Amino acid sequence: MIILGIDPGLATIGYGVIKKNNRGIEVIDYGTIDTPKTERIATRLAMIYDAMKVLIDKFQPDCVAIEELFYFRNQTTIIPVGQARGVIVLACVQKLGNLYEYTPLQIKQALTGNGRAEKKQVQYMVKTILGLNSIPKPDDAADALAVAITHSQTNNTISNNQI
Amino acid sequence: MIILGIDPGLATIGYGVIKKNNRGIEVIDYGTIDTPKTERIATRLAMIYDAMKVLIDKFQPDCVAIEELFYFRNQTTIIPVGQARGVIVLACVQKLGNLYEYTPLQIKQALTGNGRAEKKQVQYMVKTILGLNSIPKPDDAADALAVAITHSQTNNTISNNQI
Repeated sequence: MIILGIDPGLATIGYGVIKKNNRGIEVIDYGTIDTPKTERIATRLAMIYDAMKVLIDKFQPDCVAIEELFYFRNQTTIIPVGQARGVIVLACVQKLGNLYEYTPLQIKQALTGNGRAEKKQVQYMVKTILGLNSIPKPDDAADALAVAITHSQTNNTISNNQI
Repeated sequence: MIILGIDPGLATIGYGVIKKNNRGIEVIDYGTIDTPKTERIATRLAMIYDAMKVLIDKFQPDCVAIEELFYFRNQTTIIPVGQARGVIVLACVQKLGNLYEYTPLQIKQALTGNGRAEKKQVQYMVKTILGLNSIPKPDDAADALAVAITHSQTNNTISNNQI
């Protein structure tokens, strides 16, 4: 099973692609989609939508796992990031129906066993679980791999997380 | 010039279409796009996107004016509504480049001359300006006509409002 993990944003969207089979989990690719601050918001949303479709066509994931937004994390960016997340969800649902979301707490719990773990600890576990030599950079890509790993570990009991 | 006004939302999106020419402003159509609460969020976003494209194809507007969101208006719905607004903006920018947004204050100011006017007063002015026999229903459609009228009155000085 191929899982595409997404850390949503407007300026930077992290993505991480992993493959899960009987032998374990391996990384396929990770990186970011970036949109220039000099462009209009509407243009940036269209860039994100197009880039998401390219990602899905390239990696042909069986499902997509997206980090959930919380309005109290950063109130000034919640509207632009919410709009960006809308076009990400749209691109995914138009390409495949299997779409899930996980809260930061669920992700921390799945990767470290502690819902209040530090960000560094989560990133360290991404490296360890995927057998990488170093923590994936940038942070957005590591966060995207973390949500993909979360889905790989919980996909038998995820009906609540489908969006 | 044909202007499509949009009052964004997830469950109900108001739309209003007006035509402005040398003789004044006239209404072409108004109504709502509705998405069922029983459907998944992702499906509802796709329904909104598809319905927006149908609206634009049907009325062939020269530009679209969308009401701006404010996070402090309703914090619990800001993420779903923000996501819905993202797919609305996407559908518009894929069809036409002329896309503008106005704050509730700008809309009240444009329609009544008072940025702190009551909602009822704005709706009354929608009826009056468009020469209708009664206030358009539902409220979402009246709000959408209000943002379209706002754009019709300010489109010589709107560069700040382009999105």
